Amino acid sequence: MLKYRTLSRSCHFFHPKSLSNNTLKSETTQELLQTLGFIRRSQAGLFQWLPLGLRSLNKLTDTIRNRMENDGEAIEVALSAISSKSLWQTTGRWNNSELFKFKDTKGKQYCLTATCEEDITDLMKNYITSYKDMPITVYQMTRKYRDEIRPRGGLLRGREFLMKDAYSFASNKEDAFISFQKLDDTYNKIFKDIKIPFVSAWADSGDIGGEFSKEFHLIHESGEDTLMSCKDCGDISTLDMSQSYPEKDGQYLGDVDCKYALTKNHSTLLCFYYPKDRHLNWNLALKVMDQDIDLTLRDKPNDHVLKVYQTDNEDIMFGKILRVMDCRLNSKSNFPDFPLKQYLKNNFGQIDDVSIVDAQENEICGKCEEGSLRSFKSIEVGHIFLLGNKYSKPLNVKFVDKENKSDTFVHMGCYGIGVSRLVGAVAELGRDSNGFRWPAIMAPYKVSICTGPNNEENLQRTKDVQLKLLEDSSMHFQNNILKQFNEKLGIGARIKLSHAMGIPLCIIVGSNNWPNVEIEVRGIRWGKKDQWRKELEKKGQELEWKCPENENGIEKHTVPIEHLAEVVGILLKDM
Amino acid sequence: MLKYRTLSRSCHFFHPKSLSNNTLKSETTQELLQTLGFIRRSQAGLFQWLPLGLRSLNKLTDTIRNRMENDGEAIEVALSAISSKSLWQTTGRWNNSELFKFKDTKGKQYCLTATCEEDITDLMKNYITSYKDMPITVYQMTRKYRDEIRPRGGLLRGREFLMKDAYSFASNKEDAFISFQKLDDTYNKIFKDIKIPFVSAWADSGDIGGEFSKEFHLIHESGEDTLMSCKDCGDISTLDMSQSYPEKDGQYLGDVDCKYALTKNHSTLLCFYYPKDRHLNWNLALKVMDQDIDLTLRDKPNDHVLKVYQTDNEDIMFGKILRVMDCRLNSKSNFPDFPLKQYLKNNFGQIDDVSIVDAQENEICGKCEEGSLRSFKSIEVGHIFLLGNKYSKPLNVKFVDKENKSDTFVHMGCYGIGVSRLVGAVAELGRDSNGFRWPAIMAPYKVSICTGPNNEENLQRTKDVQLKLLEDSSMHFQNNILKQFNEKLGIGARIKLSHAMGIPLCIIVGSNNWPNVEIEVRGIRWGKKDQWRKELEKKGQELEWKCPENENGIEKHTVPIEHLAEVVGILLKDM
Repeated sequence: MLKYRTLSRSCHFFHPKSLSNNTLKSETTQELLQTLGFIRRSQAGLFQWLPLGLRSLNKLTDTIRNRMENDGEAIEVALSAISSKSLWQTTGRWNNSELFKFKDTKGKQYCLTATCEEDITDLMKNYITSYKDMPITVYQMTRKYRDEIRPRGGLLRGREFLMKDAYSFASNKEDAFISFQKLDDTYNKIFKDIKIPFVSAWADSGDIGGEFSKEFHLIHESGEDTLMSCKDCGDISTLDMSQSYPEKDGQYLGDVDCKYALTKNHSTLLCFYYPKDRHLNWNLALKVMDQDIDLTLRDKPNDHVLKVYQTDNEDIMFGKILRVMDCRLNSKSNFPDFPLKQYLKNNFGQIDDVSIVDAQENEICGKCEEGSLRSFKSIEVGHIFLLGNKYSKPLNVKFVDKENKSDTFVHMGCYGIGVSRLVGAVAELGRDSNGFRWPAIMAPYKVSICTGPNNEENLQRTKDVQLKLLEDSSMHFQNNILKQFNEKLGIGARIKLSHAMGIPLCIIVGSNNWPNVEIEVRGIRWGKKDQWRKELEKKGQELEWKCPENENGIEKHTVPIEHLAEVVGILLKDM
Repeated sequence: MLKYRTLSRSCHFFHPKSLSNNTLKSETTQELLQTLGFIRRSQAGLFQWLPLGLRSLNKLTDTIRNRMENDGEAIEVALSAISSKSLWQTTGRWNNSELFKFKDTKGKQYCLTATCEEDITDLMKNYITSYKDMPITVYQMTRKYRDEIRPRGGLLRGREFLMKDAYSFASNKEDAFISFQKLDDTYNKIFKDIKIPFVSAWADSGDIGGEFSKEFHLIHESGEDTLMSCKDCGDISTLDMSQSYPEKDGQYLGDVDCKYALTKNHSTLLCFYYPKDRHLNWNLALKVMDQDIDLTLRDKPNDHVLKVYQTDNEDIMFGKILRVMDCRLNSKSNFPDFPLKQYLKNNFGQIDDVSIVDAQENEICGKCEEGSLRSFKSIEVGHIFLLGNKYSKPLNVKFVDKENKSDTFVHMGCYGIGVSRLVGAVAELGRDSNGFRWPAIMAPYKVSICTGPNNEENLQRTKDVQLKLLEDSSMHFQNNILKQFNEKLGIGARIKLSHAMGIPLCIIVGSNNWPNVEIEVRGIRWGKKDQWRKELEKKGQELEWKCPENENGIEKHTVPIEHLAEVVGILLKDM
């Protein structure tokens, strides 16, 4: 009978057998994730998780779960991916074009959950009866689905993705805000655990709705989002939310553009005036108007809006008109003619000096009105919302309060992290022309052991190194050491592959210095960069640990295998 | 600012506030899972996993994952839940009426994966090029979807379910069979880990297809399946696969029924003769005919089949006719008239003494032809298949073999465990009129600590007991102790709830005997029942551990808290 071949093969099954420098340089991050065996695209926006990618994904979920339980004080549930038409109709979200919809054989209609506000609210209704049942926060780590018309950026914008979504329930505004703050704090801890630079920014609530929201971003030039930050007050906002003032007042002499809109009841014509070379920011316009704008007319040309205004106000002579002036304009600016001939002068209103266009770098921060703005590109990875009763009202979730009355709706919050997206974003963040560089907490393996081609001596030394690492139980190396490579690969190819995969530390077992080994550092120290140097000064001699200067910029260490675990531990602390 | 209420509330959030004896007795197991806060049905066949149920589910996935990695030598992947029409058309499974199908906004057609043979084969095609790449087994633990027309039995037959599915790839039949055996062995270990009684049975391959298959069942009278086992040779088969012979030959004098069928090319009329009071077993009939039956006519009446036969064979005078006689018949049985008037006597063929009806208890085993059969009801929880090239052929997965030729298809196997179904089945298995009884390995908590209503003394003692348990790190009690109950519940209600939830051991902290505590045993000892008694004899005195006889059948132990962890450890070993 044939011997069953063992794991040694399976482990590197999905690794590439050869890897050219050109591939490493020229492929996009999302292509390279596929080449190196992290994921594989099955259809547009849909991915199969291969062992290497699944390892990173699972490590990330563990990190998030740990913080959600211990800091967020949230409890885990897992909802079905299939929701019902009736629920989404009740909250008015069924017409969302990004929902995957389908029928069963009996003709009943369903959608795949894009988020779970409807389902969780409907579920919690059964368990929340009194104010004593709150506050409570539940979360889940499940796949979500969006029928993106243009899926792109690999894991960054897929049609199926893993999402950590949490929902808080409170009996009053204050408690709801405390839950929001608690989760804000938890999110900060999660991103600090991953040891990557991130920012949080006040943001627009978009389709989810609610009172206000905050986004979490990784800064990267490839990002689709733009953030504006103030050098003075430190406020960071998404472009949607960023109010700004001109560097100097009264400087704008150029042409003025005007976009017409109507209030929701069509009684008032709104005229938004702004510099012709700028872009009207509807979110800011809405804020100025206290949300009173008929958004269905938003993308219609001025002529069309005027016609609706004239039709809906039979005697336009007495119709109301409101002029909204962007703060960059002044009396010297070149305004367009007003198209209506008949109107009463005192039916005109005017709002001056508001910010209604996208902010630009170097303009003045709208928050502190002092600092100047800086703009940068970013990738959104988390979003938290204070929802109020946006979902509890249509789904009718009330509770008995302290006064024994039951006429208030539950106050909700919701909190998302795009977990699979975060894997794609962190891959992008650490990417260079040699491949990936993962933070230790989400690297598929913390260290690799690289020798020459498999022969008895090399296999034995690999085993020795592994045993030395595993002896130190505090380091949790179990299942965190990459040692299996295609048997014929030489030492150089193994190191290259380890670096490409983004394993933070590569332990090189050469034939010369044994039982000393070399450690090549591949991971990035995003935070404090020199902590390990202090340890080297303190313990270098005792551990026989050296860090020779290296000409081509790769940081190398040498250490005898008996002190390897301790040195590896010190180095990983910063990565 | 209000203090954020802590986990103490959250932990028992989904527990019932009161629990009547009648509920515990009269609800079905699947209803009780909902009442006790394990799951909640959202729509027909769809469930939300609540914290308690999710704990059991996750413990089960951990157990399965551990065996799959270490014994099955399988590596984990995670495929998308969305598959494409084209793949399922290629293998001829697109017309399956149980697939949830849908379109995206561009009109492309998809299905939710019911199983993943198509997708995994399509994926592995990219990584299998040579015989050296095999054998390899991959597995995943992901949700699957089936549009069951009549979802029933709660978790037992849902429309969304968690499935562990594994797929093996080998370059020849022998290797494929070794993989099959390896997984068979792994499955046995998994079910032994759970410490529940189970059987495996040779089975029909059904819609999945392939060469042969084996099912894993839990024996329970509520099961939908019937298994036949031989008292002599021990063979266990599903009813579908069970061949049988009559207790005594030549005894059947009653009426004979006949079902007509046609061979695939319609050249031959098949007449299956069997006792009128028995049920024709199509699977056995197919076996007799070496699969050569046109199954589209299977459910048509005899008249219809005859008409097709006559139409397709213009000169039926020369048509072929094959009589297949069940082994229970004999010359004294009362046969029906043969309907065709014109035929040539030597165009008749006959197969005698085969088993083509469902077996019955006490008949003779068709395998050993000696022992008598026993029948029992069961719940299917696993199914493993040797597939051959059923999927690799249509999806064209070939490889370069040792002779450098590449004209053979990969040999596959597939292996499923219905993970969420197993939770439902084990709940059923341990159910009694007081609630559930979980095996320790999949109980939401291993022990509970029950005191009277929350007051300072009770809270302190609970803490003391918990600390004593956690001190013994070998027991892995971390996160395995249920101690939070609704604060007003009395000690009796807490014990009742703990027992209902199926926590194997309940530690009762009364006010009289402190620092002695009582341990009430709720778990079932499915395997060796008396191991703990030997330990009691050996260590009882030293540990001050007693097991007083109890009149109403509940096993109780008493022990001082300093020895509690050790005694709990001994008791849990058998559960």
